[in-house]
Amino acid sequence: MSEENLYTFENEAYRKTYWHTCSHVMAQAVKRLYPQVKLAIGPSIDSGWYYDFDADFSFTQEHLDAIEAEMKKICKEKLPLVRSEKPRAEAVAYMESLGEPYKVELINDLPEDAVISFYTQGEFTDLCAGPHLDSTGRIKANAFKLTQCCGAYWRGDSKRKMLQRIYGIAFPKKEELDEYLQKQEEARRRDHNKLGRELEYFTTVDVIGQGLPILLPKGARVIQTLQRWVEDEEEKRGYLLTKTPLLAKRELYKISGHWDHYLDGMFVLGDPHDETKECFALRPMTCPFQYQVYLNRARSYRDLPMRLGETSTLFRNEDSGEMHGLIRVRQFTISEGHIVLRPDQLEEEFKHCLDLAKYCLGTVGLLEDCTFRFSQWDPANPNNKYEGTAEQWNEAQEIMGRILDDLGVKYTVGFDEAAFYGPKLDIQYKNVFGKEDTLVTIQIDMLLAERFGMEYTDQNGQKVRPYIIHRTSLGCYERTLAYLIEKYAGALPLWMMPTQVRVLPITDRAHDYAQEIVDRLRDAGIRAESDYRSEKLGYKIREAQMQKIPYMLVVGDRDMENQTVSVRTRAGVDLGAMSVDDFRAKCRAEIDTKARD
Amino acid sequence: MSEENLYTFENEAYRKTYWHTCSHVMAQAVKRLYPQVKLAIGPSIDSGWYYDFDADFSFTQEHLDAIEAEMKKICKEKLPLVRSEKPRAEAVAYMESLGEPYKVELINDLPEDAVISFYTQGEFTDLCAGPHLDSTGRIKANAFKLTQCCGAYWRGDSKRKMLQRIYGIAFPKKEELDEYLQKQEEARRRDHNKLGRELEYFTTVDVIGQGLPILLPKGARVIQTLQRWVEDEEEKRGYLLTKTPLLAKRELYKISGHWDHYLDGMFVLGDPHDETKECFALRPMTCPFQYQVYLNRARSYRDLPMRLGETSTLFRNEDSGEMHGLIRVRQFTISEGHIVLRPDQLEEEFKHCLDLAKYCLGTVGLLEDCTFRFSQWDPANPNNKYEGTAEQWNEAQEIMGRILDDLGVKYTVGFDEAAFYGPKLDIQYKNVFGKEDTLVTIQIDMLLAERFGMEYTDQNGQKVRPYIIHRTSLGCYERTLAYLIEKYAGALPLWMMPTQVRVLPITDRAHDYAQEIVDRLRDAGIRAESDYRSEKLGYKIREAQMQKIPYMLVVGDRDMENQTVSVRTRAGVDLGAMSVDDFRAKCRAEIDTKARD
Repeated sequence: MSEENLYTFENEAYRKTYWHTCSHVMAQAVKRLYPQVKLAIGPSIDSGWYYDFDADFSFTQEHLDAIEAEMKKICKEKLPLVRSEKPRAEAVAYMESLGEPYKVELINDLPEDAVISFYTQGEFTDLCAGPHLDSTGRIKANAFKLTQCCGAYWRGDSKRKMLQRIYGIAFPKKEELDEYLQKQEEARRRDHNKLGRELEYFTTVDVIGQGLPILLPKGARVIQTLQRWVEDEEEKRGYLLTKTPLLAKRELYKISGHWDHYLDGMFVLGDPHDETKECFALRPMTCPFQYQVYLNRARSYRDLPMRLGETSTLFRNEDSGEMHGLIRVRQFTISEGHIVLRPDQLEEEFKHCLDLAKYCLGTVGLLEDCTFRFSQWDPANPNNKYEGTAEQWNEAQEIMGRILDDLGVKYTVGFDEAAFYGPKLDIQYKNVFGKEDTLVTIQIDMLLAERFGMEYTDQNGQKVRPYIIHRTSLGCYERTLAYLIEKYAGALPLWMMPTQVRVLPITDRAHDYAQEIVDRLRDAGIRAESDYRSEKLGYKIREAQMQKIPYMLVVGDRDMENQTVSVRTRAGVDLGAMSVDDFRAKCRAEIDTKARD
Repeated sequence: MSEENLYTFENEAYRKTYWHTCSHVMAQAVKRLYPQVKLAIGPSIDSGWYYDFDADFSFTQEHLDAIEAEMKKICKEKLPLVRSEKPRAEAVAYMESLGEPYKVELINDLPEDAVISFYTQGEFTDLCAGPHLDSTGRIKANAFKLTQCCGAYWRGDSKRKMLQRIYGIAFPKKEELDEYLQKQEEARRRDHNKLGRELEYFTTVDVIGQGLPILLPKGARVIQTLQRWVEDEEEKRGYLLTKTPLLAKRELYKISGHWDHYLDGMFVLGDPHDETKECFALRPMTCPFQYQVYLNRARSYRDLPMRLGETSTLFRNEDSGEMHGLIRVRQFTISEGHIVLRPDQLEEEFKHCLDLAKYCLGTVGLLEDCTFRFSQWDPANPNNKYEGTAEQWNEAQEIMGRILDDLGVKYTVGFDEAAFYGPKLDIQYKNVFGKEDTLVTIQIDMLLAERFGMEYTDQNGQKVRPYIIHRTSLGCYERTLAYLIEKYAGALPLWMMPTQVRVLPITDRAHDYAQEIVDRLRDAGIRAESDYRSEKLGYKIREAQMQKIPYMLVVGDRDMENQTVSVRTRAGVDLGAMSVDDFRAKCRAEIDTKARD
């Protein structure tokens, strides 16, 4: 690779070096402007860098502007960055002399044999392993930006001091910075954690707790619509619906293996280690509960495949740092299903599951942005993370790989990302900020049937173990709603909108006519309402548009006479006047076909 | 009251005396036949009596027959029952001499000043407070029956010895006994806890736990049908749907008062008394969660009434002794709702709630067997069981009484049966064995809005507290399903049946035609399936009838030719041949009108 290629922003190592030097420039600027501020740490991150400072005042936008201006100066000064090393005692004494207690703590915590290095640029020296650009002049002075400032505990420990973290981003060209900032702005505009609250889809409150969102009427209605649609689609595809308990005794999870492999992620009622007392736990998954349905009577090869589906609520005791809006929560509801099958049905049923998932994700519009991950075990199996033998894993992964190839699924391999009982196909999605999570999963399980004593009588009258596929068809409803809000910036497709039509009478005289229209639309199963407030029409239209209501029907005297409605869309398009019947048919067709705008 | 009236079986005191004497006769018979058996206790109960025995063998039906025969002899011996008293030491010595250690323990546990009395009939004497009939001859020898024998811990303590409890029932006339036994037989036939399991509506398994029923595909489908219907009906009636978390931090329940008034009934995650750690609890009700929806923004008098509805799962840590099938469980799902309203809307909204409950209960067919209970507080308020002042309670009860009178509701008063925050109208239902539970409740709450800081701006711009109605519209789905199974002996109305139609092809040739019919019915939203097994038609019909499937469509060559189906009902009525379209229309109409057979 030529030097030119190595020192390009497309190269991750170069990019991170560039941003790391930016963080030093920022720290230098801060120290020039506010010498009393103490430095903590300042790494590069996936997008840009941050530096944590201990200051006795709060950084405001004015401070950030001043720091940016000072950074520009430093860039123009083209200060060379020079590496040096010091023995431990000297290094400590040096940082003490600079009045940097956090740096002293960092040095003291370094392993005994660590090389302790510093980087100096002009009057500024920082403890740092490097590498760095060779000069502050390499940083394009008009192509960086300090993006935000927030609190961060020293060393991420909530018992230590809360510091101030300033984030920044930089590019080699101003146009690239502008494009990035614009994308960030767009992401913030679509961020479900902001927009979903503003549009009153959900909220959270401190007295209930983190990661336990309250679905407000609008959010609850969207989820009800999605849920019924998925349940109906699964019924059409031969699924049997179940409704199993949300908690069970410890004994169930011991059989399933969750007690050994997943206890930390579970909400336990009572002391998990006191074996003398009954102990319940909230379920983190549905499998062992649905298996009881299979186990309710003897099964024959003719009964298979048995497809069990459930709109299932699950609980995961996530760390508070991991919680995010509707995407990462402690309680969620998901279309969980298990297919109990004969080995000869595996490929067919896997295909059936993938088809269902693609249908569901495609219909709501998320499929086009999904990627596929074939999640495999780690053969080293550290801490017995995985159940079963290498032979079983190899067999399961070999089968799954063959099925995926047969189906032409393009996937990446997720090493050490399997479930403890088998490999998975994960359908992945990224939120507006680029954070990836799993939306749908299809898993092959050759182990749990043994643990639960599940069997069927084959054609020869022998009792044999079935295989099991674990799968979801849409992904958890909360997370799906989050991605939908972000994808459509709140303007969800008509069929899932909590309010589909709002009638806006121009005058008080039109109130009865407006109500008549609402009633006729409701009779056709269209979620319609009217706005009778004595506000100006323009105000009412703007408000309906802000709320992303798909259709506004403006009705005045002429509409009453002609039995028409004047139709406006949320995109601001005026569709003109049409008869109530025509509008109703148009709207109904759009709902029935689950059309997207 | 004349003596004749007093000594009649309609008089509860006489009836209990009669049964109590029966229990002595039974004990006497046991001692005559098996002298080594030890006696524990033998009271009269709501229906008949029992006696607990400590025997070193198990009572079989043969034993019970022999005991019955001996009892008949004792009745014919017309032995007078004679009361006597003994000082404590003498009483103990006497029972020791008879070799009755349980009686000795009972005497020793009597209060110091207790009168210790005995009743003697012939050679048999028992420790007993009485009263009794004057002679064993008063018992009609051909009108009693020993109904069952089961295990029972001595003094109900699972750490003490398991004894054998024999139950009996008696009447003054043989016809009355026969009628009673027939009714019991019918109750057992309808008992959802037996029939619901046989028909595979639900099951329970030990590894999950007591009171946590698994709804098998049939039960889950009925509940899905009911749930969607209630949600849709509530939407029509102006309810906003919510979906709130199933657990919350301790802090929420402290505000609501549940922490003080209901902690024992709650499932707590972690140590409830360790205030240094975050502590969650599963919710026993929805109120404080739905209030957060109200609190999400400022409200005005124009926003009221705000009707919030939720298909809500709740958890109650019931004692294991109280659990019963689907009626008394630890987790259940209910159509919970809260109406936040202005005081001037109370009567109208209460009426609205009662109308909804009556509509729901009437449609499923349970209303005709319901009774109404006006549940009030106990003004003595022992252990501060109730929140609020006497003035608030008197006002709320006075308002509720007036509303009930205005509506012409016939009710009984349930003293000390109110919620801790207000009076209730409870709609009560009895299971097949006569055990009464609450199905639906409508409650007036003048207290919790204050605790949660709920308010609205009135017409004068003042912030004021709203009233709240807590209500359910159908009652919890599990319990409702239990009562429906019992009422209809499993043959639920067509619209809620998990399988509505089963097509039975007579020959293999008819399979394609059968499938065509199934598809056409499914297209019309009718839950149809076919039975392609190579079994005899008579067998398939019997099986479908056992499963209470409403319609069986028998199809053979002639039906294929004529494009007809031969329709049989589960009651065994042959409706003859009709076209597929006609059958489909008939079936669809029955579903749409929610008709009962």
